[in-house]
Amino acid sequence: MARKSLGDLFLHDLSDIYSAEKQLTRALARLSRAASNEELSKAFETHLHETEGQIERIDKVVEVCGLRLKRMKCAAMEGLIEEGQEMIDEMGKGPVLDAGLVGAAQKVEHYEIAAYGTLCAIGKLLGRDEAVRLLSETLEEEKATDLKLSKFAQTVGNPQAQEA
Amino acid sequence: MARKSLGDLFLHDLSDIYSAEKQLTRALARLSRAASNEELSKAFETHLHETEGQIERIDKVVEVCGLRLKRMKCAAMEGLIEEGQEMIDEMGKGPVLDAGLVGAAQKVEHYEIAAYGTLCAIGKLLGRDEAVRLLSETLEEEKATDLKLSKFAQTVGNPQAQEA
Repeated sequence: MARKSLGDLFLHDLSDIYSAEKQLTRALARLSRAASNEELSKAFETHLHETEGQIERIDKVVEVCGLRLKRMKCAAMEGLIEEGQEMIDEMGKGPVLDAGLVGAAQKVEHYEIAAYGTLCAIGKLLGRDEAVRLLSETLEEEKATDLKLSKFAQTVGNPQAQEA
Repeated sequence: MARKSLGDLFLHDLSDIYSAEKQLTRALARLSRAASNEELSKAFETHLHETEGQIERIDKVVEVCGLRLKRMKCAAMEGLIEEGQEMIDEMGKGPVLDAGLVGAAQKVEHYEIAAYGTLCAIGKLLGRDEAVRLLSETLEEEKATDLKLSKFAQTVGNPQAQEA
């Protein structure tokens, strides 16, 4: 088994989150269509545009670090998206599905928070300052999206769902 | 398509995290064996015992709410565990793998933080106070484990990995 360096781990994790973000762009369009609450539907759309910006940011990291991403499929994001799709397939459109979608989306956000957090930690150790700056921007965006979804769960999504 | 209630969503999410925790008990034993750093290896073992306690807590929630869990396999946890296993298979034992394992474990913790957070929010809306009390205990444990792993990433795991 090849002995790997911390740089290899950085490249591995960066390739993994790149695949995750790419899968997510396709899923977010579906989540937006499945949501009944207009504000929630728009929030998914907004995050779709944000995700596209985050992919561009990964491209910049690749450029400034002189890397070449590995072709891989993020298995965890595949599973997370599958769970959201199952909810859409099993539940009728409405406030309960909306509450479910908020929960599914928060799981996705938390995956990304952990992934970018690890990348920032490894990037710092490698002295890749510009990469860390870019990845930190995305990390803050993911945290803000999670917070926004938490507010949805407490205000718009769930109280409506309870009445259903 | 059957119209689902918020209670159905609570049962769905509870069944999902039950499957996730069950899968995790098997994976944590493997993570513990794969870690070279003794402190990290022990931390995985400690979390294994904690996870067993968390499964018992779900059993209590099921009892106090008079529910019957659905048989399902959490696809997201399956993917998360697959990612950790791939790291073990691809990297030689040592500090770089340890750093990778810390990152993989933090993704797992964040999945659980999102899952228990959603369950607490839905449980509150359903007025299931005792269930929320039990689930909040687990939520705090997961957050504490994530914090412990973050410290590992900054102190024990990564600086060693950098030297490798």
